[in-house]
Amino acid sequence: MKPSSEEEEEAVWGVGPWDECFEVAVQLALRAGQIIRKALTEEKRVSTKTSAADLVTETDHRVEDLIVSELQKRFPSHSRFIAEEATASGAKCVLTHSPTWIIDPIDGTCNFVHRFPTVAVSIGFAVHQELEFGVIHHCTEERLYTGRRGQGAFCNGQRLRVSRETDLSKALVLTEIGPKRDPDTLKVFLSNMERLLHAKAHGVRVIGSSTLALCYLASGAADAYYQFGLHCWDLAAATVIIREAGGTVIDTSGGPLDLMSCRVVAAGTREMAALIAQALQTINYGRDDEK
Amino acid sequence: MKPSSEEEEEAVWGVGPWDECFEVAVQLALRAGQIIRKALTEEKRVSTKTSAADLVTETDHRVEDLIVSELQKRFPSHSRFIAEEATASGAKCVLTHSPTWIIDPIDGTCNFVHRFPTVAVSIGFAVHQELEFGVIHHCTEERLYTGRRGQGAFCNGQRLRVSRETDLSKALVLTEIGPKRDPDTLKVFLSNMERLLHAKAHGVRVIGSSTLALCYLASGAADAYYQFGLHCWDLAAATVIIREAGGTVIDTSGGPLDLMSCRVVAAGTREMAALIAQALQTINYGRDDEK
Repeated sequence: MKPSSEEEEEAVWGVGPWDECFEVAVQLALRAGQIIRKALTEEKRVSTKTSAADLVTETDHRVEDLIVSELQKRFPSHSRFIAEEATASGAKCVLTHSPTWIIDPIDGTCNFVHRFPTVAVSIGFAVHQELEFGVIHHCTEERLYTGRRGQGAFCNGQRLRVSRETDLSKALVLTEIGPKRDPDTLKVFLSNMERLLHAKAHGVRVIGSSTLALCYLASGAADAYYQFGLHCWDLAAATVIIREAGGTVIDTSGGPLDLMSCRVVAAGTREMAALIAQALQTINYGRDDEK
Repeated sequence: MKPSSEEEEEAVWGVGPWDECFEVAVQLALRAGQIIRKALTEEKRVSTKTSAADLVTETDHRVEDLIVSELQKRFPSHSRFIAEEATASGAKCVLTHSPTWIIDPIDGTCNFVHRFPTVAVSIGFAVHQELEFGVIHHCTEERLYTGRRGQGAFCNGQRLRVSRETDLSKALVLTEIGPKRDPDTLKVFLSNMERLLHAKAHGVRVIGSSTLALCYLASGAADAYYQFGLHCWDLAAATVIIREAGGTVIDTSGGPLDLMSCRVVAAGTREMAALIAQALQTINYGRDDEK
């Protein structure tokens, strides 16, 4: 395929076609982390979105505005941004072939509100609907996770490798509750957890940040992750990082990942991902691109 | 009450009666942390205890042996040690009036096995059945939590204060699954989580370390914690830290804490602790001092 003029424009800036974009994403994730760490020491005004558990703060907006405006300044030809708070305000969430930035200004907003130190900035980048790189900053612990297609995944410069575990009875499994808290949804959420514990998984952890749970998976600190009710901005950057660390990211049906489907299974091995997918009962959260 | 000869012996060593003991506990927790961090980079041989989820490693034994032997050397008159692995090997777990060290060499052993970075060393100290101080080292993040009766609680020198939240619908609640994984126990565990989510708690987190969950509570990063199936060594040090940070630690019945009862509710406020206790259905784990 002939590269578009946008790709040619990027190609002159660095060794690889998206080097400059990657470097800018890293710098912005670090700056955003500084803002979030400072905000953690201050009082917060909190609003709710879809439910009492779906929170947003001034800092979410401020960080998203900073990232998007800086990217627009640095890459004026890039016009596609999928960002959590803009989407909540009605912006459409569509992945086209154009270079697209996929941004979660604060993953773990509920943690952030409570000053629970599991909070991250996530910046993903896709071209031709393919994820090129992901940058995630665990800002309370100052860990920077990065992954670039074909170039590996790293945390603070150290190469990441997923777990090679294939036996569910030896697995540490991560999940998140998701924003829907009606009785029927909660029943299925808890029943899924019960199935994995019945299958004698070593443990199930719920840390309050999908993005960071996926980073732990990428670093081999857990064997599997699943969730219904996460969004493409929780998943985009982390997907590159997990794949570059040798892991598998699929749909909860067992089929290929659909970034817009609000559901995912990720694991160190294909076998583990398949076992988790088989164990799960579906919670329907609709699609990000149909909202 | 006339101080015993043991107390007199301690009193000459420092400003307060247990200063020297506290300082030694801090040094040992830091040394233990170094051993655990090193072990996290190495292959582990893992054994199971009561269930597939109840794990122990060589490092648990090595750290416990180091702490107990150093304490015996420094404080030869102290003969009472309650330590996780010694208890698993059949040592009795009794809290007398004598100075008693209560030690968890690795809290979060399942996390440790998986290299999930939520792992701590916990050293508590009681005299006349009253907790005098607690030292907890979150060794993967190099955070040292300390609390001394009447002298406040600190993390890396910064004073800790609990959350003042009294409204369950604004609460972040922490819990742990516990070692029993039979279907009936799991049903009650999940039903308790469901009750709190129905009550519209902002979120429930499960991080895999009771001791560190209690430290997060002490630091105001969460509003409540409850668990059935933890032990006195998970609880002793953290209880002092929470109380000195202004928090409440009670029995799940709503009555006073019983350190040996294998169950607890902790919260920033009495109101929150009472709300949690009311919501819970009991899981019977027996008592530490009857095993």
